[in-house]
Amino acid sequence: MHIDILTLFPDSVGDMLVESIIGRAQERGIVRIDCHQIRDYTENKQTQVDDYPYGGGMGMIMQAQPLHSLWKHLCDEAGYRIHTIMMSPCGKVYKQEDAKRLSKLDRFIIVCGHYEGVDQRFIDECVDEEISIGDFVVTGGEIPALAVADSVCRLVPGVLSDEECFTEESHWNGLLEYPQYSRPEIWQGRAVPPILLSGHHANIKKWRRKEALRRTLLRRPDMLETAPLDKTDKKLLAEIKAELEAESGEPEIDENRS
Amino acid sequence: MHIDILTLFPDSVGDMLVESIIGRAQERGIVRIDCHQIRDYTENKQTQVDDYPYGGGMGMIMQAQPLHSLWKHLCDEAGYRIHTIMMSPCGKVYKQEDAKRLSKLDRFIIVCGHYEGVDQRFIDECVDEEISIGDFVVTGGEIPALAVADSVCRLVPGVLSDEECFTEESHWNGLLEYPQYSRPEIWQGRAVPPILLSGHHANIKKWRRKEALRRTLLRRPDMLETAPLDKTDKKLLAEIKAELEAESGEPEIDENRS
Repeated sequence: MHIDILTLFPDSVGDMLVESIIGRAQERGIVRIDCHQIRDYTENKQTQVDDYPYGGGMGMIMQAQPLHSLWKHLCDEAGYRIHTIMMSPCGKVYKQEDAKRLSKLDRFIIVCGHYEGVDQRFIDECVDEEISIGDFVVTGGEIPALAVADSVCRLVPGVLSDEECFTEESHWNGLLEYPQYSRPEIWQGRAVPPILLSGHHANIKKWRRKEALRRTLLRRPDMLETAPLDKTDKKLLAEIKAELEAESGEPEIDENRS
Repeated sequence: MHIDILTLFPDSVGDMLVESIIGRAQERGIVRIDCHQIRDYTENKQTQVDDYPYGGGMGMIMQAQPLHSLWKHLCDEAGYRIHTIMMSPCGKVYKQEDAKRLSKLDRFIIVCGHYEGVDQRFIDECVDEEISIGDFVVTGGEIPALAVADSVCRLVPGVLSDEECFTEESHWNGLLEYPQYSRPEIWQGRAVPPILLSGHHANIKKWRRKEALRRTLLRRPDMLETAPLDKTDKKLLAEIKAELEAESGEPEIDENRS
């Protein structure tokens, strides 16, 4: 996997990607991430990358020329038109399915837009897809680009260990994770749920599944609409709903619900 | 605004936040972001921060003690219980409304969870809310924490210039942005839409509104359900729908639809 990130802040973006799992994958040569300074490709002495918008209005617009010169340089060098993503609040909202799809490419480019806007002609000419990481406003495309690069690289074969892959799968089974506990058994007067110390694997598995279902029901009921649920899951969900109803019947718990 | 980020990678996270608008706000003393190394608060010689999960299973769990010691140190120093967020795939999906809400606090803590999990007892004891930035998996809470810190700091009074505030508002009017163009008038044979050069402000405003509506309809129809639309908007939307229907009737355009 080879990712080129086009940005005004190549050093800080690059630094974030030498940490942890992605850093190790780069060291081992499984993943290569190059961060390129857009400003190096301007054709003016002031290395200016933006200008006023046609039609008036506030804010500056990133001009097409520097972005295009850098993009063309990379494609010419590669000998083909590299798949090109631009981070933009106008894009499709990014999901794990997109990470899976992108992880199958050999190489792609991420353009870090800035939110005042990018000249539409560069987008029309060079950008294959615009991606947003969510309905909130950040200063530039850099942090969203990091999210895409990290989530894609994790899925490239060899980046995660077998154990990490297994964990990854369990994190993406359509439900939220069950609560986790590690040593010590009692911490600040709080004990680990006794079932986790019982050594009874079938019971532990059932408890964890039930807690994952409970958490998903309470926090992200939308996920239950698409999660693959079997007969046992449906029975557990019914139990949870009955428990929640029983709880809500007790006045001392009512006050916590709002 | 004072934000404390609890992380295993304080240097790279800090570096990302000295760039651009947030960096300037820090220099001017409007915003203060401290990145703290969780590892410095372990009570073992190996500065180990994780251990195996109770109940078995793959992956390591971040232990409660180092996180809690660091958290308590910050709260003790501040003299009050600081509002505490943890970045977690099990959290509520982050939206601009959350950025607005958090921007009204004087101070908050962001805990960067790692996705193998964090001991639930630390969460129960110290964390006020868990936040996810979307339905995709990243290596740790660091990149999500950057997204939250950046989006919140932008909303702190004085961080953005008046002009930038204006742009911010227009970016969050419930619709996607209209296309933007900057110099030159013709680039790679592509001309700026003539209306933007007309100097006719009312027509430009109408064109931009229509293009914002068109883009939202095509890319994020879900946003139209909640966007505040007036009579003119509804008329423009009807026009757009008629145009799209007319286009789809022409065979030479059909081939671009898939």
